[in-house]
Amino acid sequence: MTQAVHAAVETDAVVIGAGPVGLFQVFQLGLQGITAHLIDALPHAGGQCAELYGDKPIYDIPGVPVCTGRELVDLLLRQVAPFKPHWHLNTLVSALTPRSDGRVLLETSTGVRLLARCVFLAAGVGAFVPRTLKTAGIERFTGTQLHYQSLPPDLDLAGRHVVVHGGDEAAVAHAVELAGQGRAARVSLLHRRDLFQAPDALLQRLRQLREAGRIAVEAAQITGIITSTAGKRLTALQVVGAQESPRTLPVDVLLAVLGLSPRLGPIADWGLAMERKQLVVDTGTFRTNVAGIYAVGDVNTYPGKRKLILCGFHEATLAAFAAAEALKGGKVALQYTTTSARLHQLLGVAPAPATQV
Amino acid sequence: MTQAVHAAVETDAVVIGAGPVGLFQVFQLGLQGITAHLIDALPHAGGQCAELYGDKPIYDIPGVPVCTGRELVDLLLRQVAPFKPHWHLNTLVSALTPRSDGRVLLETSTGVRLLARCVFLAAGVGAFVPRTLKTAGIERFTGTQLHYQSLPPDLDLAGRHVVVHGGDEAAVAHAVELAGQGRAARVSLLHRRDLFQAPDALLQRLRQLREAGRIAVEAAQITGIITSTAGKRLTALQVVGAQESPRTLPVDVLLAVLGLSPRLGPIADWGLAMERKQLVVDTGTFRTNVAGIYAVGDVNTYPGKRKLILCGFHEATLAAFAAAEALKGGKVALQYTTTSARLHQLLGVAPAPATQV
Repeated sequence: MTQAVHAAVETDAVVIGAGPVGLFQVFQLGLQGITAHLIDALPHAGGQCAELYGDKPIYDIPGVPVCTGRELVDLLLRQVAPFKPHWHLNTLVSALTPRSDGRVLLETSTGVRLLARCVFLAAGVGAFVPRTLKTAGIERFTGTQLHYQSLPPDLDLAGRHVVVHGGDEAAVAHAVELAGQGRAARVSLLHRRDLFQAPDALLQRLRQLREAGRIAVEAAQITGIITSTAGKRLTALQVVGAQESPRTLPVDVLLAVLGLSPRLGPIADWGLAMERKQLVVDTGTFRTNVAGIYAVGDVNTYPGKRKLILCGFHEATLAAFAAAEALKGGKVALQYTTTSARLHQLLGVAPAPATQV
Repeated sequence: MTQAVHAAVETDAVVIGAGPVGLFQVFQLGLQGITAHLIDALPHAGGQCAELYGDKPIYDIPGVPVCTGRELVDLLLRQVAPFKPHWHLNTLVSALTPRSDGRVLLETSTGVRLLARCVFLAAGVGAFVPRTLKTAGIERFTGTQLHYQSLPPDLDLAGRHVVVHGGDEAAVAHAVELAGQGRAARVSLLHRRDLFQAPDALLQRLRQLREAGRIAVEAAQITGIITSTAGKRLTALQVVGAQESPRTLPVDVLLAVLGLSPRLGPIADWGLAMERKQLVVDTGTFRTNVAGIYAVGDVNTYPGKRKLILCGFHEATLAAFAAAEALKGGKVALQYTTTSARLHQLLGVAPAPATQV
């Protein structure tokens, strides 16, 4: 794939990671009058909160006796709304280079280049990217016969045998949808066991399509691939089920839906001081060892560090003050959102009613 | 006044200050399985949040786009409810003495003695205590003819001239109530200006009572006192209004309603390391220079400190972990409220529904 090389966009602040701490980082920067670019690998905000416990309860957000991960993200999105960050979703940061003028050049998987005066790494446990197949030789079919998470919308399936690989709700939903469309000649659902994690209604639909012969469930694991045309075309998977002999499963299109997994990715290659895969920061500023680069939330470490969302909120706040002082070249006084006319203006709220005299 | 001396109650933890950070300290201790005694000078929880901006909006509590001070306190009270602290309201800590066995003895204004393994100072800007009159010689009538904030319920007012001193809603409400009761011979409302801060309905009621001759408003300031019976009885106040000559205002009972003002009080005398009236703490543990004594929220200082509620939440959390490790004599692993069965049990909530298979 070729990518256009764009001229770098100059900006005061880039926040990497749109989980709860990254969102609150944008909020605190907003209170400092700083607008941020916000980058996340996922197609939506929320990070771990949305991916790992979207529907599960959290009890230790101060002032929020209980909320789900998704509810917390929604609350934070409301809170951050006045500050209108520049969103870059479905985007990975591929390179981060401190420059001699003190700014940092970021390059992304979508070809965007940002030249930032401050960067905030709120990357949590890393970027959530699709889990990939480890089968030898299969990676070279990525984007042609092998697709992750979803199929390109314009892919021609006429006469094709589509194998959906995975065992959770998303995998079952894809198989059911493909069978329902009737575009493919044949739909198989490949999972290591004939047991799927999905809501009842979806499992019932799967049973109906199996009984009608429109989905074949293959309870087996992939052990290899079979190719033709001098290895240019994937023709079948070698699979083996429990207490079975190895066999082949013909395939034209393989859709692997194996979930997302966090990957710290290139952060480890950016020359920042690390300890046990965490970025070392100073607790007064939450700056890394490189001027202009801050790290907040689960990605950082310091004496006493606990990987809690509420700690990340504090870290993002002090990082915003430190960055504002660095950008301004002087002290930034604390103002309160309850009383400050400037903060009310930034938040877009009416001033508090004056005490009646 | 004599006070009974009680035997000391032994406890793992005492939290001083029931503002938002003190409340969250109790919550975080609760998650560690530690029940706390909670002490506050006010008759209710909330501290500054309740006293200074109870009805004003706060915009920077993470995950709470907007709430008033009182709403935040109510949310935190709900959050802390499972951990049932031992409440000591209307209570000041009069002495705090580290003992040679590593425990700390606390003595309170109500005669309670607590022997604690850990103490958390979440005292904010100090204890909120009534503002007092500075007029020379007046202090010796406190509790007999001079009362602050409210009158003792059984005080005999028959034939007495009651002067209510103050200009805000509470002062006006007291004057209106006393005039309405008709127990006193005469009710005056003394304030430096004939201008009162109170809701319209209350101001209208004041106007009616003035017109009916049941409240006399005196726009003047106290400059001295007049006594009789060899100085044992307060008979009148010396007052002066704007562009007036000094005059006397007879008084039998003086109710001063001058609001509350925070007073750091004896904290400065407890031998803890301080910088500019703040307690110096380590950012890994939020411990002061004395083992077993932690300081969280506005009362502490460290490099980068910002006096924000959300920072206090983080500080209370790390202090709870540090204290739990000190009490246990070993590492305490992080557990998540989303997934930990032990935390669910402590919180009194049902376990999260298992993923359907």
